[in-house]
Amino acid sequence: MKGYFISVEGGDGSGKSTQIKKIEAYLREQGQEVILTREPGGTPVAEKIRELILDPANKALTGRAEMLLYAASRAQHVEEKILPALAAGKTVLSDRFTDSSIAYQAFGRGLGGMVAEVNRIATGGKEPDLTIFLNITPAAGMARKNNQDGHELDRLEQEKAAFHEKVYEGYLSLVKESNGRIADIDADRPAEEVFADIKKHLDRVFGFVATK
Amino acid sequence: MKGYFISVEGGDGSGKSTQIKKIEAYLREQGQEVILTREPGGTPVAEKIRELILDPANKALTGRAEMLLYAASRAQHVEEKILPALAAGKTVLSDRFTDSSIAYQAFGRGLGGMVAEVNRIATGGKEPDLTIFLNITPAAGMARKNNQDGHELDRLEQEKAAFHEKVYEGYLSLVKESNGRIADIDADRPAEEVFADIKKHLDRVFGFVATK
Repeated sequence: MKGYFISVEGGDGSGKSTQIKKIEAYLREQGQEVILTREPGGTPVAEKIRELILDPANKALTGRAEMLLYAASRAQHVEEKILPALAAGKTVLSDRFTDSSIAYQAFGRGLGGMVAEVNRIATGGKEPDLTIFLNITPAAGMARKNNQDGHELDRLEQEKAAFHEKVYEGYLSLVKESNGRIADIDADRPAEEVFADIKKHLDRVFGFVATK
Repeated sequence: MKGYFISVEGGDGSGKSTQIKKIEAYLREQGQEVILTREPGGTPVAEKIRELILDPANKALTGRAEMLLYAASRAQHVEEKILPALAAGKTVLSDRFTDSSIAYQAFGRGLGGMVAEVNRIATGGKEPDLTIFLNITPAAGMARKNNQDGHELDRLEQEKAAFHEKVYEGYLSLVKESNGRIADIDADRPAEEVFADIKKHLDRVFGFVATK
């Protein structure tokens, strides 16, 4: 039995947590043994690296060092958890994977091609069989999250908005170059409609239903 | 005024700590402002990464994740401490640098070329102006350290010995490919004799005395 590796990507307000729960429940209904995991983190050592990355006390952390810490956490996650689970025929469902680093660090922080290079090494080239990208513009995502549509942004919020715009462009570019690995799902709709689209991709990859 | 970047490399029993003190004292006598630092670590954030690497509780850490953590620590060290000090005309004297990762991880742990690739990214290509390699065979180094020359090794010690042999071969290969950056110093001699050789290299690089 082949284990499948599914990752889910999406920014603030994209409904990522909701959809992950739906995906997990659906795959279990279909008889899959599902390992739910997340990045950064996923194993005890990788969670310690996650704490180090996210600790506000480490403000001095440079972009390059942060990118290498994410890669270290991912290397640990892949080798200790993802590969053994897949080898045992389980389905791995990960909240974020390499695409997040490309979008946030290569595009958002402007680190460029070095991010993909380091991550190829960290993962040994392992990629998800399917990535669900919950596509919502940063503006729509923020509006959904804050319910403050007309609110005017201050300087810091504008900077943040510019960053999220670059991250979003990164995701769009990843979708284009993914040769179909990344499913581009319109996430600015009710959760059930979004999931109906995701389900089609799961059915196709897992072969749950014959393609018509 | 140009700042120089000096690293010191060497295994157990090579007298590294002693020679670093002598180098520091000599450079200060010559009027250099010296920043003494070490790897892994060298800055508060990098020291936290060092703790994570060295904590025995993190036994599950994979070779690849460890290598990426060392690289993250180095990226932080270079950007936050080494480059600013050099730009201010100071001399940076580092206990270990990238060569340690190549010797211990690429050669010792068998990770190969990926280590140099990741470290080129971590350092932005920054290399020391001069590296002092304190050359002593693992057997001689161990004998010096333990004073147990005739002692027969158990299985674990033999494995350790095989690892240190590979690390040592890594250093020899680095010396050969360094185009003179790494000074190969016979360290199996009294400390004063060893330092006399090191001094010649310092004089040459810093231009303290005219070459004859």
